[in-house]
Amino acid sequence: MSDATLKTWAEVAADLVAVAAGRASADLVIRGGVWVNVHTREVLPGHDIAVKAGRIAYVGPDAGHCVGAGTEIIEAGGRYMIPGLCDAHMHVESGMLTPAEFARAVIPHGTTSMFTDPHEIANVLGLGGVRMMHDEAALQPINIFTQMPSCAPSAPGLETTGHEITPEDVAEAMGWPGIVGLGEMMNFPGVVAGDAKMLAEIAATQGAGKTVGGHYASPDLGPAFHAYAAGGPADDHEGTREEDAIARVRQGMRAMLRLGSAWYDVESQITAVTEKGLDPRGFILCTDDCHSGTLVNDGHMNRVVRHAIACGCDPVVALQMATINTATHFGLERELGSIAPGRRADIILTSDLETLPIEHVIARGVTVAKDGACLAECPHYDWPDAARQTVHLGKALGAADFEIAAPEGANSVTAKVIGVVENQAPTKALTAELPVSGGIVEGAGGVAQIALVERHRGTGGVTNGFVSGFGYAGRMALASTVAHDSHHMIVVGTDREMMAAAANRLTEVGGGVTLWADGSEKALVELPIAGLMSDAPAREVAAKAEALGAAMEACGCTLNNAFMQHSLLALVVIPELRISDLGLVDVTRFELTELFEET
Amino acid sequence: MSDATLKTWAEVAADLVAVAAGRASADLVIRGGVWVNVHTREVLPGHDIAVKAGRIAYVGPDAGHCVGAGTEIIEAGGRYMIPGLCDAHMHVESGMLTPAEFARAVIPHGTTSMFTDPHEIANVLGLGGVRMMHDEAALQPINIFTQMPSCAPSAPGLETTGHEITPEDVAEAMGWPGIVGLGEMMNFPGVVAGDAKMLAEIAATQGAGKTVGGHYASPDLGPAFHAYAAGGPADDHEGTREEDAIARVRQGMRAMLRLGSAWYDVESQITAVTEKGLDPRGFILCTDDCHSGTLVNDGHMNRVVRHAIACGCDPVVALQMATINTATHFGLERELGSIAPGRRADIILTSDLETLPIEHVIARGVTVAKDGACLAECPHYDWPDAARQTVHLGKALGAADFEIAAPEGANSVTAKVIGVVENQAPTKALTAELPVSGGIVEGAGGVAQIALVERHRGTGGVTNGFVSGFGYAGRMALASTVAHDSHHMIVVGTDREMMAAAANRLTEVGGGVTLWADGSEKALVELPIAGLMSDAPAREVAAKAEALGAAMEACGCTLNNAFMQHSLLALVVIPELRISDLGLVDVTRFELTELFEET
Repeated sequence: MSDATLKTWAEVAADLVAVAAGRASADLVIRGGVWVNVHTREVLPGHDIAVKAGRIAYVGPDAGHCVGAGTEIIEAGGRYMIPGLCDAHMHVESGMLTPAEFARAVIPHGTTSMFTDPHEIANVLGLGGVRMMHDEAALQPINIFTQMPSCAPSAPGLETTGHEITPEDVAEAMGWPGIVGLGEMMNFPGVVAGDAKMLAEIAATQGAGKTVGGHYASPDLGPAFHAYAAGGPADDHEGTREEDAIARVRQGMRAMLRLGSAWYDVESQITAVTEKGLDPRGFILCTDDCHSGTLVNDGHMNRVVRHAIACGCDPVVALQMATINTATHFGLERELGSIAPGRRADIILTSDLETLPIEHVIARGVTVAKDGACLAECPHYDWPDAARQTVHLGKALGAADFEIAAPEGANSVTAKVIGVVENQAPTKALTAELPVSGGIVEGAGGVAQIALVERHRGTGGVTNGFVSGFGYAGRMALASTVAHDSHHMIVVGTDREMMAAAANRLTEVGGGVTLWADGSEKALVELPIAGLMSDAPAREVAAKAEALGAAMEACGCTLNNAFMQHSLLALVVIPELRISDLGLVDVTRFELTELFEET
Repeated sequence: MSDATLKTWAEVAADLVAVAAGRASADLVIRGGVWVNVHTREVLPGHDIAVKAGRIAYVGPDAGHCVGAGTEIIEAGGRYMIPGLCDAHMHVESGMLTPAEFARAVIPHGTTSMFTDPHEIANVLGLGGVRMMHDEAALQPINIFTQMPSCAPSAPGLETTGHEITPEDVAEAMGWPGIVGLGEMMNFPGVVAGDAKMLAEIAATQGAGKTVGGHYASPDLGPAFHAYAAGGPADDHEGTREEDAIARVRQGMRAMLRLGSAWYDVESQITAVTEKGLDPRGFILCTDDCHSGTLVNDGHMNRVVRHAIACGCDPVVALQMATINTATHFGLERELGSIAPGRRADIILTSDLETLPIEHVIARGVTVAKDGACLAECPHYDWPDAARQTVHLGKALGAADFEIAAPEGANSVTAKVIGVVENQAPTKALTAELPVSGGIVEGAGGVAQIALVERHRGTGGVTNGFVSGFGYAGRMALASTVAHDSHHMIVVGTDREMMAAAANRLTEVGGGVTLWADGSEKALVELPIAGLMSDAPAREVAAKAEALGAAMEACGCTLNNAFMQHSLLALVVIPELRISDLGLVDVTRFELTELFEET
């Protein structure tokens, strides 16, 4: 049942009333389960659920009066009946999957609602790209809401995106049916400084009665934090410490605790509830970013809830954080997030509340997964050429495009080097003495080259610099059109021929990730949609991503989440040193900087 | 600061941000208080609050950076800073006061938000009357939201109101700025039966994204209850037992626990939280109906919160039930209900969290009361003649209009008698053998006469019947244009001359309550606005109401809430026997019935 076919509560109220009263038959009755009630925080054995037109009509001790000849019966057999899980903030693009394929991957894990911020495609294709994501989301059998991206570019003046998002775009999007609010307001320095454009986007969202997502990525809980809260963001998922979560909830924001493929922010913050005893209603679980491999191998929101429980959280409280708390936050508590009349019939059957095996998933009254297998259709949007042809280099690149000329007459230089730190998003601003050969600076001593290749307007622009920490050896290069946030192309390599080959290869395949070594391609993940996503199944994408990881390791890189480190090197909102199409960026001072140290 | 002058968060966000960041001065700083945080359920000493443009800009350990030359300073002196209290469901008319005078009475008690259902005036003046209440509400210095009345008439076919409310009226009202949702859906049998008009009103409200108030006045928690919940009401304040509250919250409704002047439903239900340990977020406190005497002598929402605490509820949990829970329920949690940035600066200073003395009340950043004295202007609406001249009897009444003719030739009759039961809203359907004199039935043995006098259309209609339980003796009559729900005129008396005199007197004064005995008026409460409300101060109205009570007692009536019993005798939705302009009503069967028993 897609968004188009799901009727509103008001449209089917007469039917729901008739079923509950026993005058009409339910479409579906789930019999003999344990009702996990996230409103009262109770676990109530011996309950039935009756469903009509995709919504819950009745929850009570006996739905016999709702059963007719045509009623489908599902025997819960004493299992727990929990609400479908909600991911309160996430980027579909992080899975390198389209919304449809992402949905197909997470439905067996019990995710039935996602609050998605298509920030990445907004940088590539602007409002039009957001609309495409929104429209594919609407085709799915689960609830995929869209948060209108707020910050493209993330750092105005420090990078050039494919498209920009304006307050007028935000205002327009607020009228779309699937828009639930504004995506994370990453430009927190802008909000704190009273930036008129950022405040206008927030105002447009508040004016539409929708929720403003936050992103305050700083440990400073002083006046800047308070000023950000006063600006209007209603939640934040960038906290990492218990004090971060507590500060946010005290200020009337909701703390979104994040367990993504590479984010581990639940354990350190959930103690605000489990140890400090704070009212849990202000705490919400989310993933933010999940790779396809995580979805295939580990799970999605079920993984987050399990983890919260393993951190000592009461299982029903943990479930509240992934159901009703989320729904309430987005003004949807009478639409989803609990098993109660009128709500979308999004229900999971599980035989254990702690380990949370996802045995049967019902979305909008229809069985969509059983025992790990997705049984639902997840229709694809007809992505137009504009979305499939987004790698515009303007010319074939050659090794010479990656040459870094030394200052006139220098035999060596002191170069600024982006220092990758394992398991951390921030980089270090390092320096290295590098040799000069024939007027060209060469990487040495673990320092490789990095290039930001412009790909949106075909300018032929290449920004060259240095990076360390990957451990690459031999002649290799890794190129990727996943290059947060403006998603040009990041090429890292030890060899300029390989760098050119990798970059050109991505033009051929319409974007993705490719690793070249010793003259040939060793791994490729095609991401033809906006250079960000594949419309192949998660399992295929995960296999290719895994092969890519293996190829990176074969080149000497043993970092955790090595590709993610690669893809974040242009993220000019996180300190300390990054690269953009405009040059090297000192993110401690939010300004462009020279590649060579002044001597 | 009225609704018109209070700016939205978005409109003043830049100012709030500037204050929080220390770039601009606050209008007001409250210094050195204990922050009662209803988000986290914490009590946090050593906090300051900075206010700008009526909204909270900063809450933190030190607002020194927000203080400028023009900043007003209030020293909290270690007192608790709690959010202004919210009354989640109430009828202003029950106070016999206009919204302005009601506000003036409750502001010193710390009430800063009220969710009002002008159901009574809707019966008299229809949508136009609702708009007048809405417009006077908007002038006040506190937040008075309007719930659009849903059921006028309450019982179609059993009474004739002055005006009717239609689904089209509901849809129109949803566009008014102060409308927060639909008032209590009292026609619960209609919802359970799938009544199209009731469901259309609910649909119009849901379609506007607003909250549907409930009213399920039945102990039956079986299929009828579930069908009602499936129809869409989001809350209910008619529960009286712990199981009622639990059932509602489990079904995803909010249980509103009521302590009015004559409602005592908190103690019996709050055990769901205090003993059963349910998540308190689904529980809300309200008054429903408060007389002016209660407001003058006992308090308002502060009385309810104190009572909840006295019932064993944790003080901060009790405060949540009168602040953030209410705000969240109505989709206003980022607007009010907590002390947090962006919210309306509605703040109470109190030196004790259990006894809750209301020492200083700030609404929208302005001191509105100190030590029990209201310091704010509460402007009056310019009520038009249509609202001030609503008693239309069509003619002067005489004793003959109250004569009840016996069946031809009868010497005595077996008459149905409305039996008033002390401290209960339901009446008993009694019978009595009554004598006949000159063809006219006479009251005897504690049975008095009751008459429902039509007053909306001047039909001259008088429905006569019998009532017992008041204990009246001597020659007397009590007449009232407060006559729930259609608010014609109810006259109860032992003497037909007195009944006519009382009824005619109310025509003279434009409505109210008058008691006549032995040929003269003994007490009068003028209610010139719609025959329901006075625009005099609460203290004056309470004094007159008290004098009325004393006069009733002098006539032999010693019932608790004697006048309320009188005013509810036409409430044809509560069993067992009532009177309306159409006749005697058997409310156990929802049908008109004959006055005399068949022989």
